[in-house]
Amino acid sequence: MNEQTTQVIQQIITFWEANNKNITTFFNKHADEVYAKQVAPGRNSGIYLMAHLVAVSDGLFPIFGLGERLYPELEVFAGESETNITYPANLTELKAKWEALNAKLAAEFAKQTPEWWLDRHLNVSEADFALEPHRNKLNVLLSRASHENYHRGQLVFLNEQSASI
Amino acid sequence: MNEQTTQVIQQIITFWEANNKNITTFFNKHADEVYAKQVAPGRNSGIYLMAHLVAVSDGLFPIFGLGERLYPELEVFAGESETNITYPANLTELKAKWEALNAKLAAEFAKQTPEWWLDRHLNVSEADFALEPHRNKLNVLLSRASHENYHRGQLVFLNEQSASI
Repeated sequence: MNEQTTQVIQQIITFWEANNKNITTFFNKHADEVYAKQVAPGRNSGIYLMAHLVAVSDGLFPIFGLGERLYPELEVFAGESETNITYPANLTELKAKWEALNAKLAAEFAKQTPEWWLDRHLNVSEADFALEPHRNKLNVLLSRASHENYHRGQLVFLNEQSASI
Repeated sequence: MNEQTTQVIQQIITFWEANNKNITTFFNKHADEVYAKQVAPGRNSGIYLMAHLVAVSDGLFPIFGLGERLYPELEVFAGESETNITYPANLTELKAKWEALNAKLAAEFAKQTPEWWLDRHLNVSEADFALEPHRNKLNVLLSRASHENYHRGQLVFLNEQSASI
């Protein structure tokens, strides 16, 4: 195991953790009713986006071969758009699930080797991975961390208009 | 030079390039007047965000010790919020600058070693870097790439309401 490789992989894990924390901080910032609003006219609500982020992060368990989703009841929120969702999303419950799943993922990640990170994720076949070796677990984590930032860019619109944009 | 380290660094460069391309694709998708609109009521316009992304990426040259900004006239757009900007932003010109600076950065990046990437960026002093070795160039690139995604999450609101959110 090369020290530089370990350092770079750790930087990506730290980046993912920092993005998680930014989401947590944002959802602890306002009164609950603020998150029920749409981030822009006709767009997703804050609470939908929280449920979406939980559902997408929870999907890392099966993609990484680390077991099943912790909260399969939230898989309906995995889509990018809030349409026909009938499951009741409770903000307090979502925040607890967000914390619990990120803690569990972080504990799993801490055990892994560079070889594990650079091996295929389970949504890519062995044959396809042989042709596209960048389709590894590290790339999934990088892309999921950045996906949080994509939605955080939208969530900040729930701030007062006078706040920084 | 370790092969795994090189691979992981290349994945981050590829991630940055993919995010650049997503921005380019977005700004070639609609008629020019669409980008003059605000992404949400009272928020930045599409064209401001394009100028902002150009200004922020252009800032990578001095931060990485690769020379001066190519377009210092656009540095006024480096702030997160569109207030008191008097410089006229021309979309065609911005798109050309975006392409040119990303091509020049990519050419510079292709020459660098893992040691260069893991060394400090120039906004951190040697003393601070000794205490916080993660404040390296690779981390800046990671964070800037994700910053593009943060604003792309906002820019997609310029799409027709019926489009995916």
